[in-house]
Amino acid sequence: MQFFSSNFKLGILGGGQLGKMLLYETRKWDIYTKVMDASAEAPCKIACNHFVQGSLLDFDDVYTFGKDVDVLTIEIENVNVDALEKLESEGVKVYPPTNALRVIQNKATQKLFYTDNNIPTAPFTRFAYTSEIEDSISNGGLQFPFVWKSAQFGYDGQGVKVVRSLEDLNDLPNVECIAEKMVDFKSELAVVVARNAKGEIKTYPVVEMEFHPEANQVEYVICPARIKASVAKKAVEVALKVSSQIEHVGLLAVELFQTKDDKILVNEVAPRPHNSGHYSIEASYTNQFEQHIRAILGLPLGKTDSKVAGVMVNLVGAEGHTGDVVYENIDSILEMDGVTPHIYGKKQTRPFRKMGHVTIVDEDMAKARKVAQQVKETIKVISK
Amino acid sequence: MQFFSSNFKLGILGGGQLGKMLLYETRKWDIYTKVMDASAEAPCKIACNHFVQGSLLDFDDVYTFGKDVDVLTIEIENVNVDALEKLESEGVKVYPPTNALRVIQNKATQKLFYTDNNIPTAPFTRFAYTSEIEDSISNGGLQFPFVWKSAQFGYDGQGVKVVRSLEDLNDLPNVECIAEKMVDFKSELAVVVARNAKGEIKTYPVVEMEFHPEANQVEYVICPARIKASVAKKAVEVALKVSSQIEHVGLLAVELFQTKDDKILVNEVAPRPHNSGHYSIEASYTNQFEQHIRAILGLPLGKTDSKVAGVMVNLVGAEGHTGDVVYENIDSILEMDGVTPHIYGKKQTRPFRKMGHVTIVDEDMAKARKVAQQVKETIKVISK
Repeated sequence: MQFFSSNFKLGILGGGQLGKMLLYETRKWDIYTKVMDASAEAPCKIACNHFVQGSLLDFDDVYTFGKDVDVLTIEIENVNVDALEKLESEGVKVYPPTNALRVIQNKATQKLFYTDNNIPTAPFTRFAYTSEIEDSISNGGLQFPFVWKSAQFGYDGQGVKVVRSLEDLNDLPNVECIAEKMVDFKSELAVVVARNAKGEIKTYPVVEMEFHPEANQVEYVICPARIKASVAKKAVEVALKVSSQIEHVGLLAVELFQTKDDKILVNEVAPRPHNSGHYSIEASYTNQFEQHIRAILGLPLGKTDSKVAGVMVNLVGAEGHTGDVVYENIDSILEMDGVTPHIYGKKQTRPFRKMGHVTIVDEDMAKARKVAQQVKETIKVISK
Repeated sequence: MQFFSSNFKLGILGGGQLGKMLLYETRKWDIYTKVMDASAEAPCKIACNHFVQGSLLDFDDVYTFGKDVDVLTIEIENVNVDALEKLESEGVKVYPPTNALRVIQNKATQKLFYTDNNIPTAPFTRFAYTSEIEDSISNGGLQFPFVWKSAQFGYDGQGVKVVRSLEDLNDLPNVECIAEKMVDFKSELAVVVARNAKGEIKTYPVVEMEFHPEANQVEYVICPARIKASVAKKAVEVALKVSSQIEHVGLLAVELFQTKDDKILVNEVAPRPHNSGHYSIEASYTNQFEQHIRAILGLPLGKTDSKVAGVMVNLVGAEGHTGDVVYENIDSILEMDGVTPHIYGKKQTRPFRKMGHVTIVDEDMAKARKVAQQVKETIKVISK
């Protein structure tokens, strides 16, 4: 089938910043796109051919939206999978396939999938309700500290909490959840795996998330990861094992822990373009968004190597600032070599809200890392 | 002034493929855009915030369009400059400035500008009407062969003809024109110069247009040009001289001839993103479209170096094909390493119509050039 300048229709569920970056690629190839999002102000509203306002979790909205598209993809996992299953049964190509999406969408199911398939992951217990955790602690089944994760609807750090005492449980919603053993990790890594509808597979280089030494928050995504070749090899092997078991079509971003003794554990996965792959826009031969489009259209996958080293810094709202956003000192970072800011277009900032990202590329990784730190220390996302 | 996620408005005259590629950058930075084009089917209609259908040559259309924008730029030179002058006098920042645009818009004026400023260019004669040329030939003022160029409204090879005999003059429109001495050139080069509103200047590497040995048509744009360093230095010097005399804001693409004895002559210039800079999307630290936006917004200019070698191939409609377009073998070129097609979104092809371009990048120039040839020999733009 011809996708370029033809009658082919691609549907995207979710109209946020990931969708917006996907739309650059569909525009490059003149692919007709239809996007649905709950917000009439979604970043994708312009740049797609046809925008539909609707709830991603509503069966009828999703089903009606998807009926006339040829291929349907997502930019967020929290969508109505029942509607997708019906569309799939009616011949719409849904990528990621609903089988994969069902496994991933629920974190308890996802963890069980890893253990069922002998994929290394941190030990965990599943609870139907958060309120069941206290019993488990009192009868010795669970020890502090552990990581509480909501089974559903977590996104960007929402729905995750480190629990060190009974009091930490007080504010948590009483929902299906898991309690996961805290991993004493040396680094967090990620591997983006691309798999097209014909089963062709390619992996991007292993990236590394560098944490702020005090705040325990990811500060930099670094490609390639500064790890031993043997560790990188192991990380890619684990990512490929997840990929082949889960049978996704499109991208699969596999987040991993490298433990103190160089074991690789799967943290979680996302079946779509991912924050850990944003560096690829400037650094890779084929960026992750183009690759996702290639994969779901059954086109040959592009070269995943990097042209240059890349470091990504998330732009989040500064503490103490809520209101109309201002990007303070953005001119100063534009003076630095190899620096590209991406502004997601949210008009209002609030503390820690993800407002954009900045990519820094250079032939020399050490130089890119140094400039990234200057970027981080220079730009501030504040309110007027 | 803050441009990012603010009330700032950028106007673009012309909604074709160059405008479309500019819009990727404005979207990346969440800059509000308003675009005018004569066609309701213009590629920019989606992806801009506000589309206006109107004639670029009509005073009222251009003036009305530009009144409420902060900065106004163009993607094509053939616009109503009187309207731009009025807008400029009323405080709209028009980039390129109308003084520069008036010089460039008329090829006779442009050529006179070069001779007035001691900028090397091929000898020429200006005629108020094509019909005056015959007299000049009969009285010995002009010899065959020469290049006839319409003074106004030429674009993409339109309005240019090599004249070898009186008969060749028959089909030409009777308009203001120039007759230019044919240059016996070794190669055609181009230098893209960026100049921002504060007067900061950067040049991209010299690129080379490689011609088909028989068809005498540009086949490849190659960056960097495979020329001696001394020739590249001279080309950049000449381009910078044009830039400083013409006082543009934004990009200035300077097309040059390298003569058989390594002299550099200016062919013509364009005060906007240009076909000779398309390779920069994949190959450069800062692509030409982002650079144009930086320049007209008075932001610091980005690094113009290349990450990798780049070769660009224009995708034009195959001979003998008119109608609904099909990109034959596009899957095959997507299998090649470092190959990125750009499809402009024209639904109808006709012989030699510019339908898109393909960029090939590689660390190794010889490899990129070889793959470019494979691309050229593989993909065909045909009709259904």
